[in-house]
Amino acid sequence: MRSLDEQQIRDVAKGAAVLGTGGGGDPYLGTLAAVKALRLNGPPMVIEMEELSDEGFVASLGMVGAPVPLVEKFSLGPELMVVYEALQQQFRHPLEALVPVEIGGVNTIVALILASRLGIPVVDADYMGRAYPEVDLATPTLYGRSASPFALADEHGNRVVLEATDNKWAERIGRAVAIEFGAICPGMVFPMPGKHAKEAAVRGTLSLAERIGRTLRQAEAEKKEHVEALLEVTHGFELFRGKIVDVQRRTQKGWSLGEAHLEGMDQFVGHHMVVRFQNENLVAILDDRLIASVPDLITVIDSQTGQAITTERLHYGFRVIILGIPCDAKWRTPAGVALGGPRHFGYDIDYRTIESLNA
Amino acid sequence: MRSLDEQQIRDVAKGAAVLGTGGGGDPYLGTLAAVKALRLNGPPMVIEMEELSDEGFVASLGMVGAPVPLVEKFSLGPELMVVYEALQQQFRHPLEALVPVEIGGVNTIVALILASRLGIPVVDADYMGRAYPEVDLATPTLYGRSASPFALADEHGNRVVLEATDNKWAERIGRAVAIEFGAICPGMVFPMPGKHAKEAAVRGTLSLAERIGRTLRQAEAEKKEHVEALLEVTHGFELFRGKIVDVQRRTQKGWSLGEAHLEGMDQFVGHHMVVRFQNENLVAILDDRLIASVPDLITVIDSQTGQAITTERLHYGFRVIILGIPCDAKWRTPAGVALGGPRHFGYDIDYRTIESLNA
Repeated sequence: MRSLDEQQIRDVAKGAAVLGTGGGGDPYLGTLAAVKALRLNGPPMVIEMEELSDEGFVASLGMVGAPVPLVEKFSLGPELMVVYEALQQQFRHPLEALVPVEIGGVNTIVALILASRLGIPVVDADYMGRAYPEVDLATPTLYGRSASPFALADEHGNRVVLEATDNKWAERIGRAVAIEFGAICPGMVFPMPGKHAKEAAVRGTLSLAERIGRTLRQAEAEKKEHVEALLEVTHGFELFRGKIVDVQRRTQKGWSLGEAHLEGMDQFVGHHMVVRFQNENLVAILDDRLIASVPDLITVIDSQTGQAITTERLHYGFRVIILGIPCDAKWRTPAGVALGGPRHFGYDIDYRTIESLNA
Repeated sequence: MRSLDEQQIRDVAKGAAVLGTGGGGDPYLGTLAAVKALRLNGPPMVIEMEELSDEGFVASLGMVGAPVPLVEKFSLGPELMVVYEALQQQFRHPLEALVPVEIGGVNTIVALILASRLGIPVVDADYMGRAYPEVDLATPTLYGRSASPFALADEHGNRVVLEATDNKWAERIGRAVAIEFGAICPGMVFPMPGKHAKEAAVRGTLSLAERIGRTLRQAEAEKKEHVEALLEVTHGFELFRGKIVDVQRRTQKGWSLGEAHLEGMDQFVGHHMVVRFQNENLVAILDDRLIASVPDLITVIDSQTGQAITTERLHYGFRVIILGIPCDAKWRTPAGVALGGPRHFGYDIDYRTIESLNA
């Protein structure tokens, strides 16, 4: 068990935004809320998955909905306790720790905020190893674990607990509720014993986020080329370098949907890239050739600052690098590809790993 | 306490459809389900409100959503037990009886079905004295009683329990869930002690429905003019007599919305009527003059058979009588008119009683 100070929280948020692959919330918002919570509740605690007991229970927290309205209605205050109380009314086991449902600039951070409020730690892990726009696209689904009971709450004090027959239904019902709750709201999901969490989770992602954030900070301080450092710490690929020339975006059915068009710079002059997204970046297409797709991670990095730009922040004129990062091995199984691969999002293509597409 | 036999159930369903003011479900569907349940669970029991204890608890059952899809996905089987179990998971008091949330050809009947399955009675009362398209438009709202916890379930076994900060929010969230559940699903709502139910309910509506149904049946058997009998038993007004010449209807946001146009017959030859509805009939307009509006009851009666025609069954060619019935006195208070009157449905008119409009 270790605690995180303010600097470490900032590093986690920045690194989590890189792993959030365009989604998971803006790290600036996440950091603001976390620093406020740190002053109120003291430093959040982090444990490794091995420190969790098999018999104890964990549950997950994340924001459900579209990130665009989060910018306007960000509070992350009382509704986190309301959603916790709503879950506990149905799932009556005390929680030993929280597991972030995904890695993202807000979604990793909200788990830290609620956990420190509850006096329990956050596990250095998550259930995606990235961010995904649907709550059922999580590794526990691959292990037959139920997302239910699934609690949602809003900033007015409204709360819902649902028990769905499968995780796809949990996602459908939860999204309908999130839309009524102003298109985004906190959700607590995947309550389960430690034993099941150990099997299902992607481990070490919180500390990976922290390393990425620290690397960016150090590169900044030392005026070093941060892209090289980012590629090294993430084992990633530089897929493109260019300028955003067009962004189409709409908020629909509780998601931010759209695509960004880029014109190449430096070694990519004369080339064109399209990144399509549904909260998270889904595919990267270079001159009509697919060069990365879900479940691998695709992140737009501001080439001036090294910071990840979430899909709701993309706009004309940004000079960016498109970073591709291999996903966790759990997503590369046949079941993982079927659940979180390109066909799930309507792309009629077979998944090929980012390593093979960029060999 | 008395029990209902098959004939009495048929009478209740037919009479409830008259009081359902176009909504509350088709009595044919309600009767089918109730007769099946009668054979399985034995006769449903009915008690008067006075027989309920002050300290015991009651809750309400009704179908939430648009009646049109009910015709296709009617089951009213296992999901009634699922919604009951969902409510009981949050509201842990044993139920002494059920109160129908509204009077309607299906919505009164589902309470009889679930109650006989649970071995408890239904109270001869409801919370609207009519049917309304929104769950918060109920007399307990006028007495400051919460609709929550509010449980919903579908025929797959999915279930939701919500606790809303007010009854308007309960309606909003419940409707979003009902739409995901195929646009209609059972809901259990307004759990409360007998003491509060006694204060809030509209009493005697189940036995009034039964009297109306029996009156229609006897008129049929004796080949008598059923309209006269209907007017007498309901204290109603014959607002119009004519042929339906046009119906516009759409299912939207979980409601059946639209209007029916009628051309006059008999003493109404040369006149025209429009009835606008949102699941239930809202206003009746004779030659551009409003002659009835919510909260008073407006029911379309098949002039051949005397049966109420619910809004989802309206179509070209029906010869009908438009029947207006005074609403319960609770709806005629300033708070009642504000909650369930014409302005709630977007009509910029002051409510005038059907008696004064047809004096």
